[in-house]
Amino acid sequence: MPLQDDMQLISVDDHVVEPPRVWQDRLPSRMKEDGPRIVDGPSPAGQPPSNVWLYEGRVYPSIGLNAVAGKDRSEWGLDPTRYDHMRPGCYDPQARVDDMDLDGVQAGLNFPTFPRFAGTVFLEGKDQALALACVQAYNDWTIDEWCAAAPDRLIPCVLVPLWDPVLAADEVRRTAAKGARTVTFPENPVPLGLPSFHTDHWDPFWAATQECEMPVSMHFGTSGHVPMPSQEGPMAVWISLMGTNSQSTFSDLLFSEVFHRFPGVKVSLAEGGIGWMPWLLERIDYTWERHHGYQNYNTSVRPSELVKGRIHGCFIEDLTGLALRHQIGIDQIMWEGDYPHSDSQFPASRKRAAQVFADIPDDDVRKMVETNARRLFRFPRRAAA
Amino acid sequence: MPLQDDMQLISVDDHVVEPPRVWQDRLPSRMKEDGPRIVDGPSPAGQPPSNVWLYEGRVYPSIGLNAVAGKDRSEWGLDPTRYDHMRPGCYDPQARVDDMDLDGVQAGLNFPTFPRFAGTVFLEGKDQALALACVQAYNDWTIDEWCAAAPDRLIPCVLVPLWDPVLAADEVRRTAAKGARTVTFPENPVPLGLPSFHTDHWDPFWAATQECEMPVSMHFGTSGHVPMPSQEGPMAVWISLMGTNSQSTFSDLLFSEVFHRFPGVKVSLAEGGIGWMPWLLERIDYTWERHHGYQNYNTSVRPSELVKGRIHGCFIEDLTGLALRHQIGIDQIMWEGDYPHSDSQFPASRKRAAQVFADIPDDDVRKMVETNARRLFRFPRRAAA
Repeated sequence: MPLQDDMQLISVDDHVVEPPRVWQDRLPSRMKEDGPRIVDGPSPAGQPPSNVWLYEGRVYPSIGLNAVAGKDRSEWGLDPTRYDHMRPGCYDPQARVDDMDLDGVQAGLNFPTFPRFAGTVFLEGKDQALALACVQAYNDWTIDEWCAAAPDRLIPCVLVPLWDPVLAADEVRRTAAKGARTVTFPENPVPLGLPSFHTDHWDPFWAATQECEMPVSMHFGTSGHVPMPSQEGPMAVWISLMGTNSQSTFSDLLFSEVFHRFPGVKVSLAEGGIGWMPWLLERIDYTWERHHGYQNYNTSVRPSELVKGRIHGCFIEDLTGLALRHQIGIDQIMWEGDYPHSDSQFPASRKRAAQVFADIPDDDVRKMVETNARRLFRFPRRAAA
Repeated sequence: MPLQDDMQLISVDDHVVEPPRVWQDRLPSRMKEDGPRIVDGPSPAGQPPSNVWLYEGRVYPSIGLNAVAGKDRSEWGLDPTRYDHMRPGCYDPQARVDDMDLDGVQAGLNFPTFPRFAGTVFLEGKDQALALACVQAYNDWTIDEWCAAAPDRLIPCVLVPLWDPVLAADEVRRTAAKGARTVTFPENPVPLGLPSFHTDHWDPFWAATQECEMPVSMHFGTSGHVPMPSQEGPMAVWISLMGTNSQSTFSDLLFSEVFHRFPGVKVSLAEGGIGWMPWLLERIDYTWERHHGYQNYNTSVRPSELVKGRIHGCFIEDLTGLALRHQIGIDQIMWEGDYPHSDSQFPASRKRAAQVFADIPDDDVRKMVETNARRLFRFPRRAAA
């Protein structure tokens, strides 16, 4: 202890801002006009025009949601509206690697921005053939261009067409074959108008992730649900409560048939925190034990026994959770950096991690910062050249 | 250790089912017709008619929500529909005391059933004069009849007219003067169509609870919000997640002005559990520290410093939380029994508590099961006769 020099930080939750030509470089020509492209948006007084996405005629203004790395905290309330308002590390892979070097981070898994963290923007597509081509274009870009620029530093994370579980399964298989390591998926499909985890609707998708050993990364907020008690309260209220979304997913999955029917499915609850896990798991077992007399759920395996090897908690800083790491399961915990968002410690991630892990034995730290993620995402260290 | 014979269990969360004449015995005669009364409801085949409440012509069929004490678990899914389907301890104070003796519980604080746990049913009243009379009738009944039957065993908990904060303040003062010890209030007013904790709307109410030293008991679920990820999942999902409502209240209050402007306000988060508190408080402080540059919230006192003496967590069984009791604050934790609901361990509450507290030092156990509640609710032990 603490963080040893030979431990490599793997962040299982970073974010990429898509550069302008992700879709225009890849869509068939008949689809380019309607496919996502960057156009000029409104110009604030005396300023050059903003950059906005145009997709099927709809304008999506927030190209750089919460992409605040390197900015002063007083600016965090304003999302950057032009590429040149962001650090190039947001959208350029070489600049990203430079920022990771600065930050002391070896490798990172990136969620998309314009498609939203689980690709739900393509559910809004009127032309489903175009939407599918957009999902595939993003995936090809992230594997062939973004991650290919630094294959030992960037972990390929892909989208699926959420409107069709068979197409989603096909896309899992297609991208797994070309190197994808995880698929992003909503923490709860229901608020998006999609069937719940308690239906057989998603079976083709779960089967494909199991077959391809593709863990499912569920970032908090991807359901679209914001845990906001009121409109008047400061944003800080729901920012602090976002982890309750991950709690909801945790319980929802453990009372579903998913892990019973697809025991090889693995899930990562990105940014959800870990300190709530022992409490909630105790509560879930208590509920499971007392209410099966009149309710219909699987009683063959205690929910807490389903967690090991399947549900992974992720944290940036969570001293409470670290103290509870053995109750949670030391193999179920992964560190994250959250570059370039406001929760990130960039450029001090490694320095801060060293403080956070100061009193934790080496073997435990190594698992949480590196080897758990390398195993789950099948992302081994490369042999030295 | 463990639970010593001289430690008296005080449950800060039990439930009373109102007997038929609570309102008819107290309302002015012109209001009796429209005021709540028990009438015959539907008769299941070959059965006597059910008992239902009639209030302003509206039928409220669930007289005994989750009043399952003493029943087999296979029957828990069916709420009793007649008084004679329930243990008399649900509605009769002497029978309640007998059940408490059986259960090893010295004293209990009871939330109402027909008015709902925070009295929100009276928000539905078309005649607000009648609704106010109903609130007052309930309060008079609970103080003068229910608790008066066993003043050292039952802690008076009253309602307020939620549609008017000035009337609510008046009712706090009126009932405090005649012995009320706590007021029940929604964990979040917003889903009920009422102003949030981030407005000055409730100032008269907070001021009155501070002045009268009346802690505010916020039972989970009293906002009407049910944390249900889907319709198809088993009830167990939301049963296990109900504590996320209390998490929401915890953060909502800590980022509000309530404790800054009314430092004497005290809150009890009934049934919310405690094992999540250290995690959420860490997360709240982290958020508070990082986001004040562009958000508007009070930065004079760190949120975690507001908890002591103000926010109390309540639990039935929470081994995780008990292990974290000193991080939570040993003075902020209170035991509860939840009679006659399905989460209760009745008639084994004391026996089970002895197991749960087996490894905890006496001084800590005494605070959590007895003295914290006696201090908060100003409910001292009576001198021996």
